[in-house]
Amino acid sequence: MPWLTTNWGNPSSIHAPGRAARRAIEEARSKVAALVGAYPEQVLFTSGATEANNSAIHSVLIHDLTKRHIVTSVVEHSAILAYCDFVKQHHGAEITCLPVDSYGMISNDDLKAAIRPDTALVSLMWANNETGVIWPIAEFSNICRDAGVPFHTDAVQAIGKVPVHFEKCGASFLSVSGHKIGSPKGIGALILSEPASFEPLIYGGKQERGMRGGTESVPLIVALGAAAEIVSKRDAGCWNPIKKLRDEFESLLIQRIPRAAINGGGTERLPNTSNVYLPGLDGDAIVTFLDKKSICVRAGSESVATPGRI
Amino acid sequence: MPWLTTNWGNPSSIHAPGRAARRAIEEARSKVAALVGAYPEQVLFTSGATEANNSAIHSVLIHDLTKRHIVTSVVEHSAILAYCDFVKQHHGAEITCLPVDSYGMISNDDLKAAIRPDTALVSLMWANNETGVIWPIAEFSNICRDAGVPFHTDAVQAIGKVPVHFEKCGASFLSVSGHKIGSPKGIGALILSEPASFEPLIYGGKQERGMRGGTESVPLIVALGAAAEIVSKRDAGCWNPIKKLRDEFESLLIQRIPRAAINGGGTERLPNTSNVYLPGLDGDAIVTFLDKKSICVRAGSESVATPGRI
Repeated sequence: MPWLTTNWGNPSSIHAPGRAARRAIEEARSKVAALVGAYPEQVLFTSGATEANNSAIHSVLIHDLTKRHIVTSVVEHSAILAYCDFVKQHHGAEITCLPVDSYGMISNDDLKAAIRPDTALVSLMWANNETGVIWPIAEFSNICRDAGVPFHTDAVQAIGKVPVHFEKCGASFLSVSGHKIGSPKGIGALILSEPASFEPLIYGGKQERGMRGGTESVPLIVALGAAAEIVSKRDAGCWNPIKKLRDEFESLLIQRIPRAAINGGGTERLPNTSNVYLPGLDGDAIVTFLDKKSICVRAGSESVATPGRI
Repeated sequence: MPWLTTNWGNPSSIHAPGRAARRAIEEARSKVAALVGAYPEQVLFTSGATEANNSAIHSVLIHDLTKRHIVTSVVEHSAILAYCDFVKQHHGAEITCLPVDSYGMISNDDLKAAIRPDTALVSLMWANNETGVIWPIAEFSNICRDAGVPFHTDAVQAIGKVPVHFEKCGASFLSVSGHKIGSPKGIGALILSEPASFEPLIYGGKQERGMRGGTESVPLIVALGAAAEIVSKRDAGCWNPIKKLRDEFESLLIQRIPRAAINGGGTERLPNTSNVYLPGLDGDAIVTFLDKKSICVRAGSESVATPGRI
């Protein structure tokens, strides 16, 4: 609240209100670093995970102009896939999209086969935003490390729900979203193994040690730090009641609608996600019906996340 | 406050909390449009003016690959100049930086002479961030329109201090900063004469009608709308007391330190800016000295804004 009400100092200014804002930002940076198992200097604040995802791809393509190939998957968030479309058109990039099986998993062999000498980046998400399916990120990361290729993971959905440790997972880049862990919308971070070789997406002043121009959003950065601190202190079992409720909900649903199915069911999944296949029913009608009962859901007519199912 | 505390709806969701967030964003968009004399559909929310400035340059270079020349000035904000350096290196752009005279002004003839058949954009600021010197933006815009070249103006410092009207000034792009008109840091806007031909800098979901991916920062957008509404309603003379104080300060200063000079003095200037030339004194020492008296100033060892003076 003080950063929204009484202290309007610009963290780039060296007067007292500026220095106080700078300290608040650096404290928040330490908290975010602690949450994801990184060093504070590896945390780059962004306007959200979409910018973080775009930035990772942009950085590798600008950093080494000889490498134009990107490996990703068909189930990535649009912040990866839409940016891949853009760099395909405008940075001469070639994109390999790995397929997923009916459980929403990709195969290590497919990944190994996709990597080429000119691969600039492999980008695979930690947990899927539609189904909650969790991927073995350390395995993927090891494959990339063995091949000498930078690895990015969009860990937006995973952070705070399953253990995420940047250093242990061995990734080069990891994306964080503030509003997925309880901060207001409009803030996120890109975690970088090598900040020195990062190439900015947004240029301006020397904020974020030259990695992102623009006056820092002190209130949102402080909020992200506070959210990170809260999430860091949470008990490992805190999601168990949610998982139990989710599993009960899914059992009841299948019991009452036998033709329904759980997308991602039978796979390691996030505890807070339920993605239900309801054949022959209109998704929008279900959303509207449930909305009247103050139940918030989202419907899609088809999903790429578990192609065998939908 | 409700968007920070009770309503966490995603404006892309069609359930009730999502629809409420969507309405709040569109109300804010109308207020920002009203402030700058634009239509709501011409307002693209960004993470700040740095992103807005980068976006304008990026858009024209992506939109027409045959035009690689950009005209700007030596006194632009680093959000323009640093991005110009980037596109020079990585998008094959050629940059012409117009000089300024000792009053911080550029010449119409220089501008006319700089425009070429392959000029993609002219970017000149409405009012200078160091000196407050105000430029005749409608004149510059007319010159560009006659030459058939898109014109961008960074109006960050001018909005709320002098009349800024997007449609009347005839620009193609205009940048807005939230925290320069009283909203929290981390929000801004790019005003676009032709949203249909805009090429995004950040790709993801279909937010901002496909012009910028990423979940919208509902609280900051609402805050920018509120700030815009307050500024729109302000009396035209509201800056007069500030201007009077500023002028008194400068008179007293010159009286007591005769070798001092006012950078941008004698030119049309913003009412809230005072840029003082103090030969032979150490800028940082002055900042530190004044900081102890709770006076916030910034010092630079030299300025490009009024080259004859410093």
